Amino acid sequence: MNQQFPMTPIGFVRGPHSDSASIPKGLNAKHSTEGVIDVREDLEQALTDIEGFSHLFIIWVFHQSDGFELMASPPSDNRPHGLFATRTPRRPNPIGLSVVELIRREGRHLHVRGIDMLDGTPVLDIKPYLSGVAPEQLRRGWLAEAEARGKS
Amino acid sequence: MNQQFPMTPIGFVRGPHSDSASIPKGLNAKHSTEGVIDVREDLEQALTDIEGFSHLFIIWVFHQSDGFELMASPPSDNRPHGLFATRTPRRPNPIGLSVVELIRREGRHLHVRGIDMLDGTPVLDIKPYLSGVAPEQLRRGWLAEAEARGKS
Repeated sequence: MNQQFPMTPIGFVRGPHSDSASIPKGLNAKHSTEGVIDVREDLEQALTDIEGFSHLFIIWVFHQSDGFELMASPPSDNRPHGLFATRTPRRPNPIGLSVVELIRREGRHLHVRGIDMLDGTPVLDIKPYLSGVAPEQLRRGWLAEAEARGKS
Repeated sequence: MNQQFPMTPIGFVRGPHSDSASIPKGLNAKHSTEGVIDVREDLEQALTDIEGFSHLFIIWVFHQSDGFELMASPPSDNRPHGLFATRTPRRPNPIGLSVVELIRREGRHLHVRGIDMLDGTPVLDIKPYLSGVAPEQLRRGWLAEAEARGKS
C-alpha cells in the first residue's frame, strides 16, 4: 500500500511565465498563452503523428509546490473546499493537468497555446485529446455557486 | 534533468476488470462500467464538496505495464504511431488518465461510471472536470483516418 512510483521528465515547458504571479488564476481562467514543450531528444520518435491532433493533454509536475493541506482556498471562491475538488498546486502528488491546442510541431518541439505552467516545468506525459463531455451534461459544483454569488 | 518525482497512491480502484482482456480497447471504446475509487482514510476530508461535480479526472498508474517502445500499434488502427499520439499503457511514465462520471460519494468512496482501469489500480490524483473542447474544434488525426478507412 505504500508503494512509490518514480516519474521522470519526458520534457520541459518553455514559456513566458517565470513566476506564478503571471499565470491567470482560478478555475475559469482563460489560458491563451503560447509556449513550447521541448520533448527529450531520445523521445522525438514517440511524437510521430501527433501533429494530426488539435488538442493534447499535458501531464506535468508542480515542481515548486511543497506539501499539501486537506482543505484548499481557491481564488475563485472565498470558501475552502477539499483539495480534490480544486486545482490547487498543493496536492499529495503535485501533478498538473492541462489541455493545450497544438499549433505546430517542429521535430521534438511542440508549439502550443494554453500554457498555464511555469517556464521550466517538468512534463511527465502527453496524450491525444479525443472527446469532451458536453456542457449540458456537466455540473460544476461549488464553482458554479461561487460564480452565481459573484454575479448577484 | 534526471530528477525523479516519486508518486504515492492516494487510493485504489475497485471494479470488475480483473484482467486487461475485459476492458474495451481502442481510443473510441465506450466505458460505462461502474466501480468505486477508494480514497485513503487520511485523505477523506480532501474530498469535501467533490459531490457537486458531475465528472472527474482520475490520474492513475498502469501498474502492470513495464517499459515502452517509441512506436505503438493501437487496436484502433493497423498502423503504428508515436506513443504520445496514442493511449498505450507502455509509456515512459506509465500514467493513465480517465474521465469518469461521479454517481455518488459515500465518505471516502467515490462511486463512478466509466471505469477503464484494472481492479486494484493505484490512483495518484483526482481533479474536477470543468469544461471540454467543443467537438467542432477538435481534430483527431490518425484516429479519424483509421475510422474513415474502416468505414470505406
